[in-house]
Amino acid sequence: MISLEEVLKPLLRDVADFPKPGILFKDITPLLADPYARERVVDAIVDHFKTQQIDVVAGVEARGFIFGSLIAQKMAIPFIPIRKAGKLPYKKITEEYALEYGTASIEMHVDAVAKGTRVLLHDDLLATGGTASAAGSMIQRLGATVAGYSFIINLAFLPGEMVLQSRFGVKPHYLISF
Amino acid sequence: MISLEEVLKPLLRDVADFPKPGILFKDITPLLADPYARERVVDAIVDHFKTQQIDVVAGVEARGFIFGSLIAQKMAIPFIPIRKAGKLPYKKITEEYALEYGTASIEMHVDAVAKGTRVLLHDDLLATGGTASAAGSMIQRLGATVAGYSFIINLAFLPGEMVLQSRFGVKPHYLISF
Repeated sequence: MISLEEVLKPLLRDVADFPKPGILFKDITPLLADPYARERVVDAIVDHFKTQQIDVVAGVEARGFIFGSLIAQKMAIPFIPIRKAGKLPYKKITEEYALEYGTASIEMHVDAVAKGTRVLLHDDLLATGGTASAAGSMIQRLGATVAGYSFIINLAFLPGEMVLQSRFGVKPHYLISF
Repeated sequence: MISLEEVLKPLLRDVADFPKPGILFKDITPLLADPYARERVVDAIVDHFKTQQIDVVAGVEARGFIFGSLIAQKMAIPFIPIRKAGKLPYKKITEEYALEYGTASIEMHVDAVAKGTRVLLHDDLLATGGTASAAGSMIQRLGATVAGYSFIINLAFLPGEMVLQSRFGVKPHYLISF
């Protein structure tokens, strides 16, 4: 069987100068269009976490919803959406995080996770770790535990992996690194 | 076996005055937290379309990504994200649609669907049909066909169902109507 990295590489399209000049964007849409590769991705993530207790999967809007829900379905556990500010309808908590210029916020419903719940946080890409840290902080504010971080892609020239490991004490899992 | 409608009803939470005064919002987060109900939803949608040729599933950002990807996975076919303006990195087409005040836009990659592809369009909620119509128009502009529309919820006091049926010649499928 060909390795997952070999499956993934041709399915991540480099787009130059997006979202702004000088950035080489990793476009996952070819991966999304390949049902076999999607299944391999989900299986690899579920397999990685199989020896750990994971109670729910939380996915970060919007791309984190795609594999986040597939992982939750395979694990047969709840899926929790973490959304951009203003999108969730019920009572919620908010966490701000820094962008290159200014700040952004993400939100969770206050009843999204019960105290003590062990949460697997998923997003497609780990870069600076800003969004993922904000998501992890909300999990903790609700009395739940960050059991793990799951990404498809890690950008190894950015500090996300180190940031998450030092703040949350878990080694982020990813399938491919650039 | 209890009917899907009986499964769904207690999992759709009414939130008053969201996103603005006078609107009773149908919150699907309790449904997302129930893996059994999620599976029933996916199975019902896949079953409904099993006699039709569906080549790809397209989901509308952001909530449409959740069940859209689950449906695509169950059908073992490509998943195509339809995104809000400015989010897709590659060459794309844009379609504007009317909101109560002003307009919004959604986008697809130009290579998202080949000519002749039969597309199942998924979103969680059918209301006025504005977003769904814009999505269908883009499918057609790319030379593909709207094979069907799939929603979880239909708001029957709004004209979405009629709008889609008259514009695209397909009867939208949904699991529950209010």
